[in-house]
Amino acid sequence: MPEPYDFRSPRLYVEANLGDGAAVPLEREQANYLLNVLRLGSGDSVLVFNGRDGEWLTRIEVAGKRNARLTIEKQTRPQSSGPDLHYLFAPLKRARLDYMVQKATEMGVARLQPVLTRHTVAERVNGERMRANVIEAAEQCGILRVPEVAAPERLDRVLAAWDAGRRLIFCDEGAPIADPVAALREIAPGPLAVLIGPEGGFAPEEREALIALPFVTRLAMGPRIMRADTAAVAALTLVNAVLGDWR
Amino acid sequence: MPEPYDFRSPRLYVEANLGDGAAVPLEREQANYLLNVLRLGSGDSVLVFNGRDGEWLTRIEVAGKRNARLTIEKQTRPQSSGPDLHYLFAPLKRARLDYMVQKATEMGVARLQPVLTRHTVAERVNGERMRANVIEAAEQCGILRVPEVAAPERLDRVLAAWDAGRRLIFCDEGAPIADPVAALREIAPGPLAVLIGPEGGFAPEEREALIALPFVTRLAMGPRIMRADTAAVAALTLVNAVLGDWR
Repeated sequence: MPEPYDFRSPRLYVEANLGDGAAVPLEREQANYLLNVLRLGSGDSVLVFNGRDGEWLTRIEVAGKRNARLTIEKQTRPQSSGPDLHYLFAPLKRARLDYMVQKATEMGVARLQPVLTRHTVAERVNGERMRANVIEAAEQCGILRVPEVAAPERLDRVLAAWDAGRRLIFCDEGAPIADPVAALREIAPGPLAVLIGPEGGFAPEEREALIALPFVTRLAMGPRIMRADTAAVAALTLVNAVLGDWR
Repeated sequence: MPEPYDFRSPRLYVEANLGDGAAVPLEREQANYLLNVLRLGSGDSVLVFNGRDGEWLTRIEVAGKRNARLTIEKQTRPQSSGPDLHYLFAPLKRARLDYMVQKATEMGVARLQPVLTRHTVAERVNGERMRANVIEAAEQCGILRVPEVAAPERLDRVLAAWDAGRRLIFCDEGAPIADPVAALREIAPGPLAVLIGPEGGFAPEEREALIALPFVTRLAMGPRIMRADTAAVAALTLVNAVLGDWR
Protein backbone atom coordinates (compact mmCIF):
# COMPACT_ATOMS: atom_id res chain seq x y z
CA MET A 1 0.00 0.00 0.00
CA PRO A 2 1.50 3.37 -1.06
CA GLU A 3 2.61 5.68 1.77
CA PRO A 4 0.78 9.04 1.57
CA TYR A 5 4.01 11.06 1.61
CA ASP A 6 5.05 9.36 -1.64
CA PHE A 7 2.68 11.86 -3.23
CA ARG A 8 3.47 14.83 -1.00
CA SER A 9 7.27 15.00 -0.96
CA PRO A 10 9.37 14.92 -4.11
CA ARG A 11 11.23 11.63 -4.46
CA LEU A 12 14.77 11.48 -5.80
CA TYR A 13 17.10 8.70 -6.85
CA VAL A 14 20.64 9.33 -5.61
CA GLU A 15 23.94 7.45 -5.99
CA ALA A 16 25.20 8.13 -2.45
CA ASN A 17 25.00 5.62 0.38
CA LEU A 18 22.10 6.35 2.73
CA GLY A 19 22.09 5.89 6.51
CA ASP A 20 21.61 7.68 9.82
CA GLY A 21 23.61 10.87 10.04
CA ALA A 22 24.63 10.77 6.40
CA ALA A 23 24.40 13.87 4.21
CA VAL A 24 23.44 13.50 0.56
CA PRO A 25 25.21 15.70 -1.97
CA LEU A 26 23.02 16.78 -4.90
CA GLU A 27 24.06 17.06 -8.51
CA ARG A 28 23.64 20.54 -9.98
CA GLU A 29 20.56 19.45 -12.00
CA GLN A 30 18.96 17.86 -8.94
CA ALA A 31 19.54 20.99 -6.85
CA ASN A 32 18.21 23.17 -9.67
CA TYR A 33 15.12 20.97 -9.95
CA LEU A 34 14.34 21.17 -6.22
CA LEU A 35 15.20 24.85 -5.71
CA ASN A 36 14.19 26.50 -8.98
CA VAL A 37 11.63 24.17 -10.59
CA LEU A 38 9.79 22.96 -7.46
CA ARG A 39 10.69 26.20 -5.64
CA LEU A 40 11.67 24.35 -2.47
CA GLY A 41 14.01 25.74 0.16
CA SER A 42 15.96 24.89 3.33
CA GLY A 43 14.06 22.52 5.60
CA ASP A 44 11.67 21.22 2.93
CA SER A 45 11.39 17.43 2.86
CA VAL A 46 12.61 15.17 0.06
CA LEU A 47 12.43 11.38 -0.08
CA VAL A 48 15.53 9.68 -1.43
CA PHE A 49 16.50 6.12 -2.41
CA ASN A 50 19.51 4.56 -4.09
CA GLY A 51 18.24 1.07 -4.84
CA ARG A 52 20.28 -0.39 -1.96
CA ASP A 53 19.50 1.27 1.37
CA GLY A 54 15.71 1.70 1.33
CA GLU A 55 13.93 5.06 1.33
CA TRP A 56 14.85 7.99 3.59
CA LEU A 57 13.20 11.25 4.53
CA THR A 58 15.65 14.13 4.14
CA ARG A 59 15.62 17.92 4.49
CA ILE A 60 17.05 20.40 2.01
CA GLU A 61 20.05 22.48 3.12
CA VAL A 62 20.52 25.29 0.62
CA ALA A 63 24.09 26.43 -0.09
CA GLY A 64 23.50 28.50 -3.24
CA LYS A 65 21.12 29.15 -6.13
CA ARG A 66 21.91 25.80 -7.74
CA ASN A 67 23.74 24.21 -4.85
CA ALA A 68 22.20 22.21 -2.02
CA ARG A 69 22.57 19.01 -0.03
CA LEU A 70 20.12 16.82 1.82
CA THR A 71 20.41 15.95 5.51
CA ILE A 72 18.89 12.62 6.46
CA GLU A 73 16.09 12.63 9.02
CA LYS A 74 14.89 9.02 9.17
CA GLN A 75 14.33 5.89 7.13
CA THR A 76 10.77 5.74 5.79
CA ARG A 77 10.95 2.26 4.19
CA PRO A 78 13.50 -0.55 4.42
CA GLN A 79 15.01 -1.83 1.16
CA SER A 80 12.78 -4.39 -0.56
CA SER A 81 13.82 -6.67 -3.38
CA GLY A 82 10.69 -7.28 -5.46
CA PRO A 83 10.08 -10.25 -7.78
CA ASP A 84 12.95 -12.09 -9.51
CA LEU A 85 11.46 -11.17 -12.87
CA HIS A 86 13.39 -10.25 -16.00
CA TYR A 87 11.76 -8.47 -18.91
CA LEU A 88 12.96 -9.20 -22.44
CA PHE A 89 11.64 -7.02 -25.24
CA ALA A 90 12.33 -6.01 -28.81
CA PRO A 91 13.09 -2.27 -28.79
CA LEU A 92 10.36 -0.03 -30.19
CA LYS A 93 10.56 3.42 -31.69
CA ARG A 94 11.53 6.22 -29.30
CA ALA A 95 8.30 7.35 -27.60
CA ARG A 96 6.85 3.85 -27.24
CA LEU A 97 10.17 2.52 -25.96
CA ASP A 98 10.27 5.24 -23.28
CA TYR A 99 6.77 4.27 -22.31
CA MET A 100 7.46 0.54 -22.26
CA VAL A 101 10.56 0.99 -20.10
CA GLN A 102 8.63 3.15 -17.62
CA LYS A 103 5.80 0.61 -17.50
CA ALA A 104 8.10 -2.38 -16.94
CA THR A 105 9.70 -0.46 -14.06
CA GLU A 106 6.28 0.29 -12.54
CA MET A 107 5.50 -3.43 -12.79
CA GLY A 108 8.52 -4.12 -10.59
CA VAL A 109 10.84 -6.04 -12.94
CA ALA A 110 14.42 -6.63 -11.78
CA ARG A 111 16.11 -6.44 -15.18
CA LEU A 112 15.33 -5.04 -18.63
CA GLN A 113 16.95 -6.92 -21.52
CA PRO A 114 16.48 -5.49 -25.02
CA VAL A 115 16.64 -8.31 -27.59
CA LEU A 116 17.16 -7.86 -31.31
CA THR A 117 14.91 -10.02 -33.49
CA ARG A 118 14.43 -10.42 -37.26
CA HIS A 119 11.64 -7.86 -37.29
CA THR A 120 13.07 -5.46 -34.72
CA VAL A 121 12.36 -1.92 -35.92
CA ALA A 122 14.79 0.12 -33.83
CA GLU A 123 18.24 -1.51 -34.00
CA ARG A 124 19.90 1.38 -32.20
CA VAL A 125 18.94 1.48 -28.56
CA ASN A 126 19.84 4.40 -26.31
CA GLY A 127 20.87 2.82 -23.01
CA GLU A 128 21.32 6.20 -21.31
CA ARG A 129 17.77 7.13 -22.24
CA MET A 130 16.40 3.80 -21.01
CA ARG A 131 18.21 4.25 -17.71
CA ALA A 132 16.76 7.78 -17.37
CA ASN A 133 13.25 6.42 -17.98
CA VAL A 134 13.79 3.67 -15.41
CA ILE A 135 14.88 6.22 -12.78
CA GLU A 136 11.99 8.60 -13.60
CA ALA A 137 9.44 5.79 -13.23
CA ALA A 138 11.10 4.53 -10.02
CA GLU A 139 11.06 8.06 -8.53
CA GLN A 140 7.40 8.65 -9.43
CA CYS A 141 6.04 5.25 -8.48
CA GLY A 142 7.72 4.69 -5.12
CA ILE A 143 9.92 1.87 -6.46
CA LEU A 144 12.85 1.00 -4.16
CA ARG A 145 14.71 -1.41 -6.41
CA VAL A 146 15.91 0.24 -9.61
CA PRO A 147 15.88 -2.34 -12.40
CA GLU A 148 19.13 -3.09 -14.19
CA VAL A 149 19.20 -2.14 -17.88
CA ALA A 150 21.16 -4.69 -19.91
CA ALA A 151 22.86 -3.98 -23.23
CA PRO A 152 20.86 -5.05 -26.32
CA GLU A 153 21.65 -8.57 -27.54
CA ARG A 154 20.51 -10.80 -30.36
CA LEU A 155 17.63 -13.03 -29.27
CA ASP A 156 19.35 -16.22 -30.47
CA ARG A 157 22.43 -15.40 -28.37
CA VAL A 158 20.31 -14.61 -25.30
CA LEU A 159 18.50 -17.94 -25.66
CA ALA A 160 21.71 -19.88 -26.29
CA ALA A 161 23.13 -18.58 -22.98
CA TRP A 162 19.85 -19.01 -21.06
CA ASP A 163 19.85 -20.33 -17.47
CA ALA A 164 17.31 -23.18 -17.75
CA GLY A 165 16.35 -22.60 -14.11
CA ARG A 166 14.63 -19.36 -15.14
CA ARG A 167 11.24 -20.00 -16.79
CA LEU A 168 10.76 -17.81 -19.89
CA ILE A 169 7.15 -16.74 -20.46
CA PHE A 170 6.78 -16.13 -24.18
CA CYS A 171 3.81 -13.95 -25.14
CA ASP A 172 2.84 -15.69 -28.34
CA GLU A 173 0.36 -13.82 -30.56
CA GLY A 174 0.01 -17.01 -32.58
CA ALA A 175 -0.97 -19.20 -29.62
CA PRO A 176 -4.55 -20.50 -29.62
CA ILE A 177 -6.74 -18.84 -26.98
CA ALA A 178 -6.16 -20.62 -23.65
CA ASP A 179 -6.72 -19.57 -20.05
CA PRO A 180 -3.60 -17.50 -19.24
CA VAL A 181 -4.11 -17.83 -15.48
CA ALA A 182 -4.19 -21.64 -15.75
CA ALA A 183 -1.08 -21.60 -17.97
CA LEU A 184 0.86 -19.52 -15.42
CA ARG A 185 -0.35 -21.65 -12.48
CA GLU A 186 1.48 -24.63 -14.04
CA ILE A 187 4.83 -22.88 -13.55
CA ALA A 188 6.81 -24.00 -10.51
CA PRO A 189 8.08 -21.30 -8.11
CA GLY A 190 11.42 -19.84 -9.20
CA PRO A 191 13.08 -17.12 -11.27
CA LEU A 192 10.97 -15.81 -14.16
CA ALA A 193 11.30 -13.84 -17.37
CA VAL A 194 8.73 -12.40 -19.78
CA LEU A 195 9.43 -11.98 -23.50
CA ILE A 196 7.48 -9.58 -25.73
CA GLY A 197 8.19 -9.52 -29.45
CA PRO A 198 8.52 -6.63 -31.91
CA GLU A 199 5.54 -4.75 -33.38
CA GLY A 200 5.71 -6.91 -36.51
CA GLY A 201 5.76 -10.12 -34.46
CA PHE A 202 8.43 -12.82 -34.45
CA ALA A 203 9.65 -14.45 -37.68
CA PRO A 204 8.11 -17.96 -38.06
CA GLU A 205 11.50 -19.66 -37.44
CA GLU A 206 12.09 -17.53 -34.32
CA ARG A 207 8.68 -18.55 -33.03
CA GLU A 208 9.26 -22.24 -33.74
CA ALA A 209 12.62 -22.10 -31.98
CA LEU A 210 11.10 -20.42 -28.91
CA ILE A 211 8.21 -22.88 -28.61
CA ALA A 212 10.65 -25.81 -28.84
CA LEU A 213 12.75 -24.66 -25.86
CA PRO A 214 12.25 -26.68 -22.64
CA PHE A 215 12.33 -23.59 -20.39
CA VAL A 216 9.66 -21.70 -22.38
CA THR A 217 5.98 -21.33 -21.44
CA ARG A 218 3.71 -19.91 -24.15
CA LEU A 219 1.24 -17.32 -22.97
CA ALA A 220 -1.90 -16.48 -24.97
CA MET A 221 -3.47 -13.11 -24.21
CA GLY A 222 -6.89 -13.16 -25.78
CA PRO A 223 -8.47 -12.62 -29.18
CA ARG A 224 -7.42 -9.02 -29.78
CA ILE A 225 -4.16 -7.73 -31.21
CA MET A 226 -2.29 -5.61 -28.64
CA ARG A 227 0.55 -3.23 -29.32
CA ALA A 228 3.83 -4.37 -27.82
CA ASP A 229 3.78 -1.84 -24.98
CA THR A 230 0.23 -2.88 -24.03
CA ALA A 231 1.15 -6.56 -24.16
CA ALA A 232 4.08 -5.78 -21.84
CA VAL A 233 1.86 -4.39 -19.08
CA ALA A 234 -0.73 -7.14 -19.63
CA ALA A 235 1.80 -9.99 -19.38
CA LEU A 236 3.64 -8.51 -16.38
CA THR A 237 0.29 -7.96 -14.66
CA LEU A 238 -0.70 -11.61 -15.07
CA VAL A 239 2.71 -12.81 -13.86
CA ASN A 240 2.61 -10.53 -10.79
CA ALA A 241 -0.98 -11.52 -10.02
CA VAL A 242 -0.60 -15.29 -10.46
CA LEU A 243 3.06 -15.94 -9.56
CA GLY A 244 4.37 -12.69 -8.10
CA ASP A 245 3.89 -10.34 -5.15
CA TRP A 246 0.32 -9.18 -5.86
CA ARG A 247 -1.18 -12.06 -3.85
CA MET B 1 -5.76 -15.12 -33.00
CA PRO B 2 -4.93 -12.09 -35.18
CA GLU B 3 -5.26 -12.61 -38.96
CA PRO B 4 -1.91 -11.99 -40.69
CA TYR B 5 -3.41 -9.50 -43.15
CA ASP B 6 -4.23 -7.23 -40.22
CA PHE B 7 -0.59 -6.25 -40.47
CA ARG B 8 -0.27 -6.30 -44.27
CA SER B 9 -3.23 -4.24 -45.47
CA PRO B 10 -4.09 -0.84 -44.09
CA ARG B 11 -7.23 -0.95 -41.97
CA LEU B 12 -9.78 1.84 -42.00
CA TYR B 13 -12.84 2.69 -39.95
CA VAL B 14 -15.68 3.90 -42.18
CA GLU B 15 -19.21 5.15 -41.48
CA ALA B 16 -20.84 3.48 -44.50
CA ASN B 17 -22.78 0.22 -44.34
CA LEU B 18 -20.71 -2.74 -45.51
CA GLY B 19 -21.99 -5.71 -47.49
CA ASP B 20 -21.56 -7.68 -50.71
CA GLY B 21 -21.54 -5.45 -53.77
CA ALA B 22 -21.40 -2.26 -51.74
CA ALA B 23 -18.97 0.51 -52.61
CA VAL B 24 -17.40 2.55 -49.83
CA PRO B 25 -16.96 6.28 -50.40
CA LEU B 26 -13.82 7.74 -48.77
CA GLU B 27 -13.53 11.08 -47.07
CA ARG B 28 -10.95 13.38 -48.61
CA GLU B 29 -8.51 12.81 -45.70
CA GLN B 30 -8.90 9.02 -45.95
CA ALA B 31 -8.29 9.09 -49.72
CA ASN B 32 -5.30 11.39 -49.23
CA TYR B 33 -3.90 9.04 -46.57
CA LEU B 34 -4.18 5.97 -48.79
CA LEU B 35 -3.07 7.56 -52.07
CA ASN B 36 -0.50 10.15 -51.00
CA VAL B 37 0.77 9.01 -47.59
CA LEU B 38 0.75 5.23 -48.09
CA ARG B 39 1.24 5.70 -51.87
CA LEU B 40 -1.38 3.09 -52.70
CA GLY B 41 -3.24 2.96 -56.00
CA SER B 42 -6.12 1.28 -57.86
CA GLY B 43 -6.47 -2.39 -56.99
CA ASP B 44 -4.51 -2.20 -53.71
CA SER B 45 -6.26 -3.87 -50.78
CA VAL B 46 -7.68 -2.10 -47.74
CA LEU B 47 -9.51 -3.67 -44.79
CA VAL B 48 -12.54 -1.74 -43.58
CA PHE B 49 -14.93 -1.98 -40.62
CA ASN B 50 -17.73 0.19 -39.29
CA GLY B 51 -18.36 -1.38 -35.89
CA ARG B 52 -21.56 -3.04 -37.16
CA ASP B 53 -20.96 -5.24 -40.21
CA GLY B 54 -17.69 -7.02 -39.46
CA GLU B 55 -14.48 -6.56 -41.42
CA TRP B 56 -14.27 -6.53 -45.23
CA LEU B 57 -11.46 -6.73 -47.75
CA THR B 58 -11.79 -3.96 -50.33
CA ARG B 59 -9.85 -2.65 -53.34
CA ILE B 60 -9.02 0.97 -54.04
CA GLU B 61 -10.62 2.60 -57.08
CA VAL B 62 -8.83 5.86 -57.76
CA ALA B 63 -10.89 8.75 -59.16
CA GLY B 64 -8.48 11.63 -58.57
CA LYS B 65 -5.43 12.79 -56.63
CA ARG B 66 -7.39 12.98 -53.37
CA ASN B 67 -10.49 11.15 -54.49
CA ALA B 68 -11.09 7.42 -54.33
CA ARG B 69 -13.62 4.80 -53.29
CA LEU B 70 -13.32 1.24 -52.13
CA THR B 71 -15.02 -1.69 -53.84
CA ILE B 72 -15.84 -4.58 -51.55
CA GLU B 73 -14.30 -7.95 -52.35
CA LYS B 74 -15.28 -10.20 -49.44
CA GLN B 75 -15.94 -10.28 -45.71
CA THR B 76 -12.80 -11.24 -43.81
CA ARG B 77 -14.36 -11.41 -40.30
CA PRO B 78 -17.96 -11.41 -39.07
CA GLN B 79 -18.96 -8.74 -36.55
CA SER B 80 -18.08 -9.71 -32.97
CA SER B 81 -19.35 -8.02 -29.86
CA GLY B 82 -16.60 -8.40 -27.27
CA PRO B 83 -17.05 -8.27 -23.50
CA ASP B 84 -19.85 -6.24 -21.86
CA LEU B 85 -17.24 -4.17 -20.05
CA HIS B 86 -17.45 -0.46 -19.34
CA TYR B 87 -14.39 1.57 -18.41
CA LEU B 88 -14.77 4.50 -16.01
CA PHE B 89 -11.79 6.78 -15.52
CA ALA B 90 -10.83 10.19 -14.24
CA PRO B 91 -9.46 12.15 -17.22
CA LEU B 92 -5.70 12.69 -17.27
CA LYS B 93 -3.62 15.36 -18.93
CA ARG B 94 -3.59 15.27 -22.72
CA ALA B 95 -0.84 12.80 -23.72
CA ARG B 96 -1.64 10.30 -20.97
CA LEU B 97 -5.35 10.55 -21.69
CA ASP B 98 -4.72 9.76 -25.38
CA TYR B 99 -2.69 6.78 -24.29
CA MET B 100 -5.25 5.55 -21.77
CA VAL B 101 -8.08 5.78 -24.29
CA GLN B 102 -6.06 3.84 -26.88
CA LYS B 103 -5.18 1.17 -24.32
CA ALA B 104 -8.75 0.73 -23.09
CA THR B 105 -9.81 0.26 -26.72
CA GLU B 106 -7.09 -2.35 -27.27
CA MET B 107 -8.37 -4.14 -24.17
CA GLY B 108 -11.76 -4.45 -25.84
CA VAL B 109 -13.99 -2.31 -23.63
CA ALA B 110 -17.51 -1.51 -24.89
CA ARG B 111 -17.83 1.98 -23.40
CA LEU B 112 -15.51 4.69 -22.09
CA GLN B 113 -17.02 6.88 -19.36
CA PRO B 114 -14.93 9.81 -18.11
CA VAL B 115 -15.84 10.60 -14.50
CA LEU B 116 -15.00 13.82 -12.67
CA THR B 117 -13.75 13.34 -9.11
CA ARG B 118 -12.56 15.68 -6.34
CA HIS B 119 -8.94 15.30 -7.45
CA THR B 120 -9.51 15.17 -11.20
CA VAL B 121 -6.75 17.19 -12.86
CA ALA B 122 -8.19 17.79 -16.33
CA GLU B 123 -11.75 19.03 -15.96
CA ARG B 124 -12.07 19.81 -19.66
CA VAL B 125 -12.23 16.64 -21.74
CA ASN B 126 -12.03 16.70 -25.52
CA GLY B 127 -14.60 14.13 -26.70
CA GLU B 128 -13.60 14.54 -30.36
CA ARG B 129 -10.03 13.75 -29.49
CA MET B 130 -11.01 10.72 -27.41
CA ARG B 131 -13.14 9.45 -30.29
CA ALA B 132 -10.19 9.90 -32.69
CA ASN B 133 -7.93 7.93 -30.33
CA VAL B 134 -10.52 5.16 -30.05
CA ILE B 135 -10.75 4.86 -33.85
CA GLU B 136 -6.96 4.94 -34.31
CA ALA B 137 -6.51 2.14 -31.78
CA ALA B 138 -9.38 0.11 -33.28
CA GLU B 139 -7.87 0.47 -36.78
CA GLN B 140 -4.39 -0.54 -35.64
CA CYS B 141 -5.37 -3.40 -33.35
CA GLY B 142 -7.93 -5.21 -35.46
CA ILE B 143 -10.81 -4.26 -33.18
CA LEU B 144 -14.26 -4.77 -34.77
CA ARG B 145 -16.42 -3.13 -32.13
CA VAL B 146 -15.64 0.56 -31.70
CA PRO B 147 -16.22 1.53 -28.06
CA GLU B 148 -18.74 4.24 -27.30
CA VAL B 149 -17.27 7.41 -25.75
CA ALA B 150 -19.65 8.86 -23.16
CA ALA B 151 -19.73 12.51 -22.10
CA PRO B 152 -17.85 13.28 -18.84
CA GLU B 153 -20.03 13.12 -15.73
CA ARG B 154 -19.53 13.66 -12.02
CA LEU B 155 -18.68 10.39 -10.26
CA ASP B 156 -21.43 10.83 -7.64
CA ARG B 157 -24.03 11.27 -10.40
CA VAL B 158 -22.77 8.23 -12.29
CA LEU B 159 -22.97 6.13 -9.11
CA ALA B 160 -26.41 7.48 -8.19
CA ALA B 161 -27.75 6.33 -11.57
CA TRP B 162 -25.88 3.01 -11.56
CA ASP B 163 -27.57 -0.19 -12.78
CA ALA B 164 -26.98 -2.53 -9.82
CA GLY B 165 -26.89 -5.48 -12.24
CA ARG B 166 -23.49 -4.27 -13.50
CA ARG B 167 -20.67 -5.11 -11.07
CA LEU B 168 -18.28 -2.18 -10.65
CA ILE B 169 -14.66 -3.20 -10.08
CA PHE B 170 -13.02 -0.39 -8.13
CA CYS B 171 -9.22 -0.36 -8.34
CA ASP B 172 -8.48 0.76 -4.79
CA GLU B 173 -4.90 1.87 -4.13
CA GLY B 174 -5.76 1.81 -0.43
CA ALA B 175 -6.94 -1.80 -0.37
CA PRO B 176 -4.76 -4.25 1.57
CA ILE B 177 -2.85 -6.65 -0.69
CA ALA B 178 -5.17 -9.53 -1.60
CA ASP B 179 -5.15 -12.06 -4.44
CA PRO B 180 -6.78 -10.12 -7.32
CA VAL B 181 -7.58 -13.31 -9.27
CA ALA B 182 -9.46 -14.75 -6.27
CA ALA B 183 -11.34 -11.45 -5.79
CA LEU B 184 -12.47 -11.43 -9.42
CA ARG B 185 -13.46 -15.12 -9.33
CA GLU B 186 -16.07 -14.25 -6.68
CA ILE B 187 -17.95 -12.09 -9.19
CA ALA B 188 -20.99 -13.77 -10.80
CA PRO B 189 -21.21 -13.72 -14.61
CA GLY B 190 -22.82 -10.54 -15.95
CA PRO B 191 -22.14 -7.00 -17.12
CA LEU B 192 -18.96 -5.43 -15.72
CA ALA B 193 -17.29 -2.07 -15.29
CA VAL B 194 -13.81 -1.04 -14.14
CA LEU B 195 -13.13 2.24 -12.33
CA ILE B 196 -9.67 3.86 -12.20
CA GLY B 197 -9.19 7.01 -10.15
CA PRO B 198 -7.25 10.20 -10.81
CA GLU B 199 -3.46 10.49 -10.47
CA GLY B 200 -3.88 11.97 -6.98
CA GLY B 201 -6.20 9.14 -5.90
CA PHE B 202 -9.77 9.43 -4.68
CA ALA B 203 -10.72 11.76 -1.83
CA PRO B 204 -11.25 9.77 1.43
CA GLU B 205 -15.03 10.39 1.35
CA GLU B 206 -15.22 9.29 -2.30
CA ARG B 207 -13.38 6.11 -1.41
CA GLU B 208 -15.60 5.39 1.60
CA ALA B 209 -18.72 5.93 -0.53
CA LEU B 210 -17.45 3.57 -3.24
CA ILE B 211 -16.53 0.78 -0.82
CA ALA B 212 -19.99 1.01 0.80
CA LEU B 213 -21.88 0.41 -2.47
CA PRO B 214 -23.42 -3.08 -2.83
CA PHE B 215 -22.46 -3.39 -6.51
CA VAL B 216 -18.78 -2.54 -5.94
CA THR B 217 -15.89 -5.04 -5.76
CA ARG B 218 -12.57 -3.63 -4.53
CA LEU B 219 -9.54 -4.75 -6.48
CA ALA B 220 -6.03 -4.57 -5.00
CA MET B 221 -3.18 -4.55 -7.51
CA GLY B 222 -0.04 -5.24 -5.58
CA PRO B 223 2.45 -3.35 -3.42
CA ARG B 224 3.70 -0.83 -5.98
CA ILE B 225 2.17 2.49 -6.95
CA MET B 226 1.08 2.49 -10.60
CA ARG B 227 0.25 5.49 -12.73
CA ALA B 228 -3.41 5.64 -13.72
CA ASP B 229 -2.80 4.59 -17.32
CA THR B 230 -0.77 1.57 -16.18
CA ALA B 231 -3.43 0.61 -13.64
CA ALA B 232 -6.01 0.78 -16.46
CA VAL B 233 -4.23 -1.84 -18.57
CA ALA B 234 -3.48 -3.97 -15.50
CA ALA B 235 -7.08 -4.01 -14.25
CA LEU B 236 -8.60 -4.62 -17.70
CA THR B 237 -6.09 -7.44 -18.24
CA LEU B 238 -7.13 -9.19 -15.03
CA VAL B 239 -10.83 -8.77 -15.83
CA ASN B 240 -10.38 -10.13 -19.38
CA ALA B 241 -8.24 -13.01 -18.15
CA VAL B 242 -10.41 -14.09 -15.20
CA LEU B 243 -13.95 -13.08 -16.28
CA GLY B 244 -13.69 -12.09 -19.94
CA ASP B 245 -12.86 -13.53 -23.34
CA TRP B 246 -9.19 -14.42 -22.80
CA ARG B 247 -10.06 -17.90 -21.49
